This record gives sequence, C-alpha cells and structure tokens, in this order.
Amino acid sequence: MATSSYFLLFAILVLASWQATASDPILVNGFVCKDPKDVKAEDFFLAAKLDMPRDTKTNKVGSNVTLINVMRIPGLNTLGISLARIDYAPLGENPPHTHPRATEILTVLEGTLYVGFVTSNPDNKFLSKELNKGDVFVFPEGLIHFQFNPNPYKPAVAIAALSSQNPGAITIANAVFGSKPAISDDVLAKAFQVEKKTVDWLQAQFWADNQN
Amino acid sequence: MATSSYFLLFAILVLASWQATASDPILVNGFVCKDPKDVKAEDFFLAAKLDMPRDTKTNKVGSNVTLINVMRIPGLNTLGISLARIDYAPLGENPPHTHPRATEILTVLEGTLYVGFVTSNPDNKFLSKELNKGDVFVFPEGLIHFQFNPNPYKPAVAIAALSSQNPGAITIANAVFGSKPAISDDVLAKAFQVEKKTVDWLQAQFWADNQN
Amino acid sequence: MATSSYFLLFAILVLASWQATASDPILVNGFVCKDPKDVKAEDFFLAAKLDMPRDTKTNKVGSNVTLINVMRIPGLNTLGISLARIDYAPLGENPPHTHPRATEILTVLEGTLYVGFVTSNPDNKFLSKELNKGDVFVFPEGLIHFQFNPNPYKPAVAIAALSSQNPGAITIANAVFGSKPAISDDVLAKAFQVEKKTVDWLQAQFWADNQN
Amino acid sequence: MATSSYFLLFAILVLASWQATASDPILVNGFVCKDPKDVKAEDFFLAAKLDMPRDTKTNKVGSNVTLINVMRIPGLNTLGISLARIDYAPLGENPPHTHPRATEILTVLEGTLYVGFVTSNPDNKFLSKELNKGDVFVFPEGLIHFQFNPNPYKPAVAIAALSSQNPGAITIANAVFGSKPAISDDVLAKAFQVEKKTVDWLQAQFWADNQN
Amino acid sequence: MATSSYFLLFAILVLASWQATASDPILVNGFVCKDPKDVKAEDFFLAAKLDMPRDTKTNKVGSNVTLINVMRIPGLNTLGISLARIDYAPLGENPPHTHPRATEILTVLEGTLYVGFVTSNPDNKFLSKELNKGDVFVFPEGLIHFQFNPNPYKPAVAIAALSSQNPGAITIANAVFGSKPAISDDVLAKAFQVEKKTVDWLQAQFWADNQN
Amino acid sequence: MATSSYFLLFAILVLASWQATASDPILVNGFVCKDPKDVKAEDFFLAAKLDMPRDTKTNKVGSNVTLINVMRIPGLNTLGISLARIDYAPLGENPPHTHPRATEILTVLEGTLYVGFVTSNPDNKFLSKELNKGDVFVFPEGLIHFQFNPNPYKPAVAIAALSSQNPGAITIANAVFGSKPAISDDVLAKAFQVEKKTVDWLQAQFWADNQN
Repeated sequence: MATSSYFLLFAILVLASWQATASDPILVNGFVCKDPKDVKAEDFFLAAKLDMPRDTKTNKVGSNVTLINVMRIPGLNTLGISLARIDYAPLGENPPHTHPRATEILTVLEGTLYVGFVTSNPDNKFLSKELNKGDVFVFPEGLIHFQFNPNPYKPAVAIAALSSQNPGAITIANAVFGSKPAISDDVLAKAFQVEKKTVDWLQAQFWADNQN
Repeated sequence: MATSSYFLLFAILVLASWQATASDPILVNGFVCKDPKDVKAEDFFLAAKLDMPRDTKTNKVGSNVTLINVMRIPGLNTLGISLARIDYAPLGENPPHTHPRATEILTVLEGTLYVGFVTSNPDNKFLSKELNKGDVFVFPEGLIHFQFNPNPYKPAVAIAALSSQNPGAITIANAVFGSKPAISDDVLAKAFQVEKKTVDWLQAQFWADNQN
Repeated sequence: MATSSYFLLFAILVLASWQATASDPILVNGFVCKDPKDVKAEDFFLAAKLDMPRDTKTNKVGSNVTLINVMRIPGLNTLGISLARIDYAPLGENPPHTHPRATEILTVLEGTLYVGFVTSNPDNKFLSKELNKGDVFVFPEGLIHFQFNPNPYKPAVAIAALSSQNPGAITIANAVFGSKPAISDDVLAKAFQVEKKTVDWLQAQFWADNQN
Repeated sequence: MATSSYFLLFAILVLASWQATASDPILVNGFVCKDPKDVKAEDFFLAAKLDMPRDTKTNKVGSNVTLINVMRIPGLNTLGISLARIDYAPLGENPPHTHPRATEILTVLEGTLYVGFVTSNPDNKFLSKELNKGDVFVFPEGLIHFQFNPNPYKPAVAIAALSSQNPGAITIANAVFGSKPAISDDVLAKAFQVEKKTVDWLQAQFWADNQN
Repeated sequence: MATSSYFLLFAILVLASWQATASDPILVNGFVCKDPKDVKAEDFFLAAKLDMPRDTKTNKVGSNVTLINVMRIPGLNTLGISLARIDYAPLGENPPHTHPRATEILTVLEGTLYVGFVTSNPDNKFLSKELNKGDVFVFPEGLIHFQFNPNPYKPAVAIAALSSQNPGAITIANAVFGSKPAISDDVLAKAFQVEKKTVDWLQAQFWADNQN
Repeated sequence: MATSSYFLLFAILVLASWQATASDPILVNGFVCKDPKDVKAEDFFLAAKLDMPRDTKTNKVGSNVTLINVMRIPGLNTLGISLARIDYAPLGENPPHTHPRATEILTVLEGTLYVGFVTSNPDNKFLSKELNKGDVFVFPEGLIHFQFNPNPYKPAVAIAALSSQNPGAITIANAVFGSKPAISDDVLAKAFQVEKKTVDWLQAQFWADNQN
C-alpha cells in the first residue's frame, strides 16, 4: 500500500480503507464502501416520507413497518442503528416477533398502543403496558414482543429505533407456520400441544410479512 | 488504589481487578469475581455427569436439556461459552426455540435427529437435515430452531455448545401461550389466525420448560 | 454459587446474574440490576411526553434536546440505544457538537432543518442537506454535526435515535470556550488564530447546555 | 443500491448484505457469503463422524484433535463458535498450548483425563484436576493448558467447544522449538536457562502438529 | 470451500480466511489480507525514524504528528492500536482535537507539556496538568484535548499510543472554520456567539492539518 | 433512579452511572469509578519517570518491563490501552511470552533489538527483524514473541503500547517450568521431547518475572 495515497474512512468502528489504485468498488460487510473524497450527503440521506401514513390493509394483522436500514441508507453501514415508522389500523397489531440482532425503543406519535414482551425461560414473564402519545417503551434484544392498537376506530402511529443497521425480524407465527417449506406437522403438533390437523390448517393459511 | 497491591484477573476480556483492602467479594456482571491468588481448579470444574442419561418424561415434549453455564461454573464468567447435553425420548423433541444471545453447534452422540431452523423475514426459509451419530449442525444466533428424534423406539443424545456463558432460551410455544400472565387472546388470535377460544384453550394447557 | 438459586437476567449482551442471598441491589455498569423475578414493565417505560413541544427560549441557540437514555429508563442498561426529541425555535439550532459514543439517525416531524457534518482530518469535508418533514439523515459516530431551522417564522421538531444507552454530547463552543475552569487563552488563541482578547471575550459569555 | 432488491443475511452479528447485481461471490472475513435465498442446510452441516475414534499414532504426543471450524462449515462464519473431538492414546496428551482467540470448555466422553492451566504473570499458578467421564472443565482464553490421559492401558475421548469460529492453536513446544525458521538459540538458551546445545538438540527434533 | 485447502489467519479478532483458488488479493476492512504462508516480517515493520525530529514550521500551530497506523503498517489491520511521535516547537501546540475512535496515552520524551481535556455536557469540566519528561497522561476516547509546549525556547517531544489501528483525528478549529465547503456563517455565528463577519474572517484563514 | 440526580461518566465504552445517594464507591470492572464531578487530572496522570533507565540485573534474562496499566492509572479503566518502557541489558532479552488480551506495537528509543514472533499451528512460521532506533514493529494479539538486545556492550530501550488497559503477560518458560505448583514432569517430558530428569532440573531453576 503506497503510503502517499491513503483514504480515511469517516466514522466507522470497523475501520476500512483501500488502495488508491483500486478501480472496483470496495465492499465492507458486503456494502459498497466509498472513498471519503467521493462521499456525498446523499449517502447519509433518504427522502423516506416517514410523515406519511402507510397502507395497513395489505396484510391480515393490520400494520405496516417502514424500516430505514442500511439497505436504504448505505452510509449506515457499520454504524449500528436504524429507524422505523410503524402504522397500525384500528385493532391492528405488529404481531409477536423478535429482532435477532437489536433492541428496540419506541415512542407513540398518534393513538394508543398496548405493548408487551415475554422474558426468557424459565420465567416467561409477560410485561405489558398501555402507551399513550409521547410515551416511550423498550423491547430488549432477542425477546418476543408485540404492539397492538386497542382502539376500534382510530389508527395509531409509532416511531421505533433499533440498535443495528440491519436488525432483522422474525414474525413468530409466520416463521413457525408459514415457513417455506413447511416444518413437519409432527414437530409442531407436539410443540404446540395441538392435533396435526390443526397444524396443517394453520400451515395452509396465508402468512404475509408486514414490512415494506 | 495502592500500586503495591494489585491483583491480576486471569483470562477475561472485560478486565477486572479490585482493591487490596476490599473485604467483600467483588462482582463482575453480577457474579463473584475472585482474587487470582484465591482461585481454585474447582472454580472451572463441574462433576456434571454429562455421560449419564437424563429423564425425558418430566415434560410433554420428551426431551431434557442439561445446560452447563455460568450459573453452574462461576469461572465461565465473561468467557462467552457454555455446553449442554440434550436427551431425547423416542419421538421426543427439543421444541422450536431461540437463544437470544448465542449461536449453537451440535453433534449427535446417540441415535438420529431431524433438525432445522427458519431464516428471518421476509424469506422464512426452513432449512432442515437428518443427522446421524457424529454429524455436526449449526443453529445461527437468534433464529428459531428445533431438534426432533424421529425414531419411535430409541432415544437420542446430543452435545451442544453455545457462544455465551448465559445464552438464554425462549421456547416459542411456552413464551407465546404459557407466559405469566397470559398475553391477551385478542393479540394472539389475530397473530396466529385462529379463534380466540383456540387461544384460550392453548393458554390453559400446562407449559413446562425442558431445561434442568 | 448455589445452583438451586439463580436468576436469569433478561436481554442483556453483557450478562448478569447474582446470588439469591444478596440483600443489596446489584450494579451493572453502575446501574441497579434487578432480579428478573422482580422486573416490572415500568422498568422499560417512561411517560416522556415526547409529543409535547419544549421550551426553546432557555438558551441562546434556540433549541431543546429531550434525551431518553439509561438515566431515564433503567431497563435500557447494556442495550445500546436511546431516543430524543429535539425542538427548534424559528432560526434556532442544535449547535455543532459530537457524541463520543454514538451514531445518530434523525427524522423531521415538523418544519424543515438544514443539517450537516464534517469529516475527519485531513479532508474536513462538509456534507449538508436541507431536510423536509419525513426525511431521514445519519450523523456518523464522533463527527461534528448540527441541525439548524432556517425558517424565521415556524418552529421545527425532530426525533433522533442514538446508538448508545448513554451517548454523551460535547457542544463544541461550550467545551472550548465555556469549560470550567477556562482553557488557557494562549492555547485557544493559537488554535483558533485569533487574539487572546477575543478568546477572553468569548470565555466571558454565558455558555448554557440545550439539553433537559 | 436498488431499494427494491436486497438480501437479508441470516444470523450474523457483523451484518452483511450485497448488491442484487453482484455476479461474483461476496466475501465477509474472507469467506464466501451467500445470498440468503441460496443458502442450503448443507452450509450449516458436516458429516464429521465425531463418533469415530481417530488415529493417535501419527505424532509423538499420542493425541488427535478433530476441529470443526469455519473452514469445515462455512455457515459458522461470524458466529463465534467451533467444536472438536479429541482422542488420547493411553498416556497420550494434548500438549501445553494456547488458543489466542478462544476459551475452551471440555467434557470427557471416554476414559479419564488429567487437565490443567497456568495463570498469567506474576503468579503463574497451576490449576489442575483429574476428570472422569461426564465431568466438565474450562480453559480460559489465551492461557497455557493441556490434557493428559494418565491411564497406561485405555484411550480417552473428549468433546471440546471453543468460543471462536477460528480459535487458532499454538502448541508451545512446537512454536518455540519447531518454528520455521528456527528461533536463535541465543534467545532460547537464555529464556529457558539451558545450554545452547540443548536448544540445538531440541530444535533438531521432529515437531508435528496433532490437529487433523 | 475445499476443506483440504485452507489458510489460517494469524492473530486477528475478526477472523479471515479465503479460498485456495483465489487469485486476487482478499480485503478485510478494505485492506489487503495476505495468505499466512506469504506474510513477511516486513508486513509488521516500518523504518519510521521515530527517533528523528520533525519539522514544526509547516503549520501555524507549531507541531507535527507522525502517526504510524494501518495505512503505514498493513499488519496492524484489525489489531486495534497505533503509535505516534509528536514534535512541538517552542510555544507550539497540538491544538484542541478529538479522536472519534480511540483513547490516547502519552509520555513526554523531551521538554515539558501543558495538557488537558474537557468532559462532556453538562459539566464541561477542564482537567489539565503540566507534564515533565517521563510523565504519562491519558486522553479518554472522543473528548476534546490538546498539548501545549509552554517553553518559549525549547522544543518538546512526546510518544503517544492510540487504541485503534485508524483512530482518526478532528482538529476542532479546522473542522469548524476550515471545512470544505464552509459551514453557513449563520450557523456558526449563533453557535459561537460572534458576529457573522467574525465567522467570515475566521473562515478566510488558512487551516492546515499538523499530521504528516 | 431519581431523574433529577444523575452523573454522566466521561469517555467510557461500557457506560457507567450510579445513584446520587450512593455513599460507597462504585466499581466498574472491579475498579473504583468516580462521580465525574469528582474526577481530577490526577486520575489520568502518573509521574512514571519513563525517561529513567531501569535496573536490568534483578533477573537472569537481563530486561525490565515498566508497564503503565489500569492498576497504575485508574482513569484507564475501560479505555483499552496501556503503555510500557522496556530496558534491555547488553545481550538482555524480554523472553518469549504472550499477551492473552492485547496486540503490542513497539518503537526503539536506544540501541538495537532483534525481535520476532511465531504464527499459529500448523505453520509456526517465525518472522523476525533487527530494529534500529526509531523503527516500529507489531506483535499480533496472543502470539509468542520476544525482543533481544544483540549488542554485547550497550543497553537498549523501547517504548511499547498494548491494546488493553490490562493486557496480561505469560512468560512461556516461567509458566511452563516455573508454575506453582509444578506441572507433572510426565506431561512436560512428552510435550518437550526430553527426559523427565531434564524437566525436573528445569523446574528446580529460579524463574523470576521481569515486570516491575
């Protein structure tokens, strides 16, 4: 590496630099990593329209998660954070799910939300709270949690932040009963203490993700 | 801190030391952290009898997880690993669960196991494999996974290692339908696309952990 | 440690547990760490009223940062995230500052904001953008950045998330010219290429933090 | 990056994603990182035959380490764990060594083992234990440790887990006396308080690794 | 990946390996990562001449920082440390700056230094000390700090170590008043409580980095 | 925790705060963690006299390591770095050793040094270099390394930095042959391919640490 030609990468914990002679883009964590001399404000920006209501009718649970992560803003790479707007139809919910790589902190912008999470084995303690506008709640990393809009007439809106640039999400019902291919009904029947035909019926439903 | 009296803590990433005058035990991560001059081999040892079969009849799923973590061996504190023996009755299973803080690598000691995990949204791809004695399989951190003994006559045994001194476990069915108190059946009925009475029936079952 | 009396700490990466016989509260990172059997939803909740406008007239820069961090929600401890509401008076600004331990991601709730940050030496490249309602912008960890409300008539509001439970903030002008005690004017005069009397004049001003 | 074409990487702490148009394989930490849509169960599987005895006669120390790490199971990449079977001939040993990047936890499957490790300077305290079948022992990261089969007639077998997908191993005698090229005998004679000819004699021996 | 052809990477926390068939150099964090069989002592060496005085007249602050980081020694990649020699002219200073990714520890080789740093909001406490030859001082990560040679006749020299292979540096005055392009004088005038023409005058000065 | 009484801890990655009512000192990693309002410059300072030669005659290897770590400067706690001066008598050496938790970067202040390290199994490649005044060399974390002064008449001096506030050191010969109690000569004789009486003789020598 020529010592006279180097490039400082701004603001990353896992530092990156690259050779002056490189003609191809460099990847860090699989994302393009630009020469600091070439970065633009646009690399850290998205006209995400997080102020605009989202359609909550495209799935059966009545919610819509708009996640702004490293796939949307390349400059987030290695920086360990992302942001989301969540819309809830009346009686809609963001169903029980986990983020395998992130804690979530949420505040209610509109309406009310009934929220909760369950602690690990062996306690499996359920902690819940009704949130009003302006309230803040924390869902610790990896725990099963949900938000539910208890109001039958009014929608609700929340802003959530997650402690990863790519937090991932696993909707429990979808992963268990809607995986491709399906998990053996022997396994699920015993785990959920139901008949195999109940599992089969569940696996025949349409399981759609609520993230756009 | 007197410079003439210090104590080197052996083998921890998050380093610890303490004052020579301290008469109380020192806690790191809440665990007692001993003066290196006082440590004994016993702090790193457990007569765990991992060679002995466990009872798989104490729960309905027919399995028994014996986890050797930092609660069992204090010297594991900060060291990021733990070990488990898992016994499976004929047709027994270690039901779908996640480890919020650990990846698992498993090898089969006796019998055969049908194992699998489901990837995150939106794919929820189910990857599975039948394992024979001596085979090795990996369950990535935070993903829902299970092991099932397909043999109706013979038990199975596995040794698993986890990448945390306290990996935690969340058995999906137990956390969702067996939490204390129960999650609202409104929330679960919509999430799992079933009637509320089905949720109520499920919540009335006995949900017991399979870890000893 | 008695194997029959242990406590699982929910959802932390740096795991903690403690002895059943402990009568005093346990501290992790200096914060009280509760027995999971004792945790309540309130430990993860704050009625923060983030929906309510804040007073932007208590300081000369015309802004007000309401930060919800681990000092406000104890359950955030070790979880690596915090949330803030920022109010801007007309022509108000959140002046140039750094977060020594966090990246920030921000979305505009009301009004417009002119935002920017400066890259490290030797480039010191200034990247800026005018943000409208719903836009999202990222300020990488440790870099000097600001937000300014260019509208002379209307206030602005933003929600920001930070990748630390205690991100810290260093307002550049305050730390340089308002430290207690003052930095030598010899040092500052040479660094900022001004006369010592200019430094003295600056140091005599009132430098007030804009965080509540 | 086209927002409409992205790929979620399952279960890694250092997240990775890549461009939809990429035709070449992507490397994370130098390993191929596959599109989640393309992953197969085989990426997380190895028919390692860990149930089968290994040959302990290929080296003078009478042991054989079969390590299942990221070079053997690509899906282990970034997941921070690996697994090993260790076979010991009668009176065989896994000689003093360190793992520069991992703690080890071990359980005895067959026979008995005399194990131990030495703490750091200045104490250099030697902690040892005789292990029977089913016992568990921990060797903290970076410390010199060994296992020895004290039985002159029967072999022994252990399963060990390590807290890295590529823990590395440094066999002390081999690194000190068997390096290529040899370390100066001036250096080693003074360090080990022996004559240079003794060092020369040692360096002339055959130093073979016991890992397959 | 062919299991019969693998390469062990020596001594990195974020492990790397690569395919035997790869003909192109592999990048980790953007730096070339060599096959261990090909590494040479030169990859970990630099004839840096840190014993030789540097020119302190190329900038107005009278100092010169010679940083030996991963751009100078490729083998430092992923290893989290760098080293610097700093020369100070009589009355010269290393002006107020931050390292966004590193703590600094410094010892004085020649002369005397007046050093200090400022804590975060809201205290902005200034801690300072006059250092003589052989004294050691620590500047915590991300905090604004400086060193000043108070002697009008004699130069000073320090050796500093930083806890990152690419610590980065942000000279406060340069980043605030010398950015390219300039920050709006509206923003800076309000932040620094000065007239816009004062800001304009400052921005017209020549702001040169003191790192070679 | 009363929201009106909190304490910001300056500059730590693992953040700490504590209750206003605490009358006892708080420990983080076992070290006293002070209220930021109470910190003094002295907490980050040591009059270490690193400019003064050390006695190299107190041990048989002819070297003396003066390490400035968190035991000497409490403010280093959690900051991940330490500094050392190493003195070498003519023909003296800092014998083969590892740092289980740190990489080392070294520069020569006086004299010349022959330095080297050995890579992991299976290569055990020895990389070495003769260093002159002002040269810089890197010893990667966990690898066995040494420095030797080849000059029979002149002493040598080096400054080294380590990537941990408590790097630890394991002198190979001392840990192997000078542990308390001694390692079984059966184990060492087989590992080092020598007679048991040779091991016994070695274990009877005086093995003294060279760190003050």
